[in-house]
Amino acid sequence: MSLAHFFYLLESLGIVSFALSGMLMAEQKNFDPVGWYIIACVTAFGGGTLRDLILDNHPVYWISHWEYPVIIFWITALFYFISKIRIPYNGLIVTDTIGLALFTITGTQTALYSGHPATICMILAVIGATFGGLIRDVLCNEVPMIFQKVSFYASVSFVGSGLYILLLTLRTHQLTATILASLFIIIFRLLAYRYNWRFR
Amino acid sequence: MSLAHFFYLLESLGIVSFALSGMLMAEQKNFDPVGWYIIACVTAFGGGTLRDLILDNHPVYWISHWEYPVIIFWITALFYFISKIRIPYNGLIVTDTIGLALFTITGTQTALYSGHPATICMILAVIGATFGGLIRDVLCNEVPMIFQKVSFYASVSFVGSGLYILLLTLRTHQLTATILASLFIIIFRLLAYRYNWRFR
Amino acid sequence: MSLAHFFYLLESLGIVSFALSGMLMAEQKNFDPVGWYIIACVTAFGGGTLRDLILDNHPVYWISHWEYPVIIFWITALFYFISKIRIPYNGLIVTDTIGLALFTITGTQTALYSGHPATICMILAVIGATFGGLIRDVLCNEVPMIFQKVSFYASVSFVGSGLYILLLTLRTHQLTATILASLFIIIFRLLAYRYNWRFR
Repeated sequence: MSLAHFFYLLESLGIVSFALSGMLMAEQKNFDPVGWYIIACVTAFGGGTLRDLILDNHPVYWISHWEYPVIIFWITALFYFISKIRIPYNGLIVTDTIGLALFTITGTQTALYSGHPATICMILAVIGATFGGLIRDVLCNEVPMIFQKVSFYASVSFVGSGLYILLLTLRTHQLTATILASLFIIIFRLLAYRYNWRFR
Repeated sequence: MSLAHFFYLLESLGIVSFALSGMLMAEQKNFDPVGWYIIACVTAFGGGTLRDLILDNHPVYWISHWEYPVIIFWITALFYFISKIRIPYNGLIVTDTIGLALFTITGTQTALYSGHPATICMILAVIGATFGGLIRDVLCNEVPMIFQKVSFYASVSFVGSGLYILLLTLRTHQLTATILASLFIIIFRLLAYRYNWRFR
Repeated sequence: MSLAHFFYLLESLGIVSFALSGMLMAEQKNFDPVGWYIIACVTAFGGGTLRDLILDNHPVYWISHWEYPVIIFWITALFYFISKIRIPYNGLIVTDTIGLALFTITGTQTALYSGHPATICMILAVIGATFGGLIRDVLCNEVPMIFQKVSFYASVSFVGSGLYILLLTLRTHQLTATILASLFIIIFRLLAYRYNWRFR
């Protein structure tokens, strides 16, 4: 398996886990199947779309990967119609965290390619990794989770993005930097979730 | 009347009907006249703007048709200040459905011109046709209608877009394809509304 | 101090005052510090970002001024952690009004550079000046203020933008036009706030 295939697999996993978190919300809100599908897509693609629009990065990433909306379609159908399948909440935290880590790194890398300074790249990475969930909450008429309930989510993404840039600056190999920064995000976020760390 | 004039007339009708559905909401929510106008414009232009931004299709369509916001301005003034004029609800369903059909076809066509695969074109058509209403609902602090209350809205738009692409692939003339796909959307949507068809 | 420096100073003041109005909302909603920072940035940058995206004006303005998000970071830290510092509400109205005036003029000017007709420029100026606050309200799950509570806000911005264009058409010097139109917006808005002017 080549490096590109490895990244593609991880990105798909991140998208699927974001889609699942959208479906969890759709289930709570009693949406119909079209609502399930739209909210799953918005959660998975919203943040990256906004990031790509701000970067003037065309085509937007899910447009050049038309298989992503198709995959989400089948997963939605699976979970909606075979309702015996329950989305395991703890598994979801793990995949959502992997999604957060992966979108943070790919977002940082995309912004770096466009030649922007580090601060801007870190902000765009956070937008790509967290605004999908933010739009999901807004569409479901909730105050966004990242504003209050899940401390150390956007902030971990921001610091992880900075760590990735720092490692590249120190001439670390791109693969090593990706793995180290991703591990930092995943481990810190899971510890913060497990032990309920909070600001103040 | 040429074909282009015919389409322009239909598109205007769609925009006006979307604007009217925004004003209906503004009336329920007791907005002031500026609120009426902004919500009317957002409902009419929101979906198409997002579609054009994602497609990198500039200028965004209402920017090259500056008469559209002006028309909406006068309609808003008419309905706000001459409050004896009531928006007939059933008439609104008909015009809104025409808007849905027209935006679906023009959105599909716009995306096809950009050379994207069928799935992506169908998704962008649905975004252009339905996200104006979705943004209207979000701005008015409501859970979007298309998630629960109006089954066979986004889905009819999606299938109609696919039908249009299928007809073009079968070498149907563009005008015939437009009429057939539009009629499908309009008739199916009105029947679903009349007989309250739902998923499950 | 050159003219460019003068405008830069005014724009910074506008951004800071919009950021402060976001923080006021974050305090009411009990957000954590990350929520404070995100909502402050969204309020300050949201409107201008949407305007620049619609205009296809890249890089988006805060991307070419990476010091803006950094400034907002330090202000957020100051107000969040030294909670003895209270944001004076009346002072905020004044700075917010200055922000409204400045964003209106710079937005009009940006749209004029792109060669759009007057109506479109005025609409884009209003989007740049008011949609940051609108997005702030939506993210905090409130019905946007500009729809009901603060008459003569978006409308004053719209008329001020038109006044600026009119003055330029009459061959007034750009600086004079800026000062006159800004003063109109600031004075009219403050009077409307002080005497609670409303439509009807």
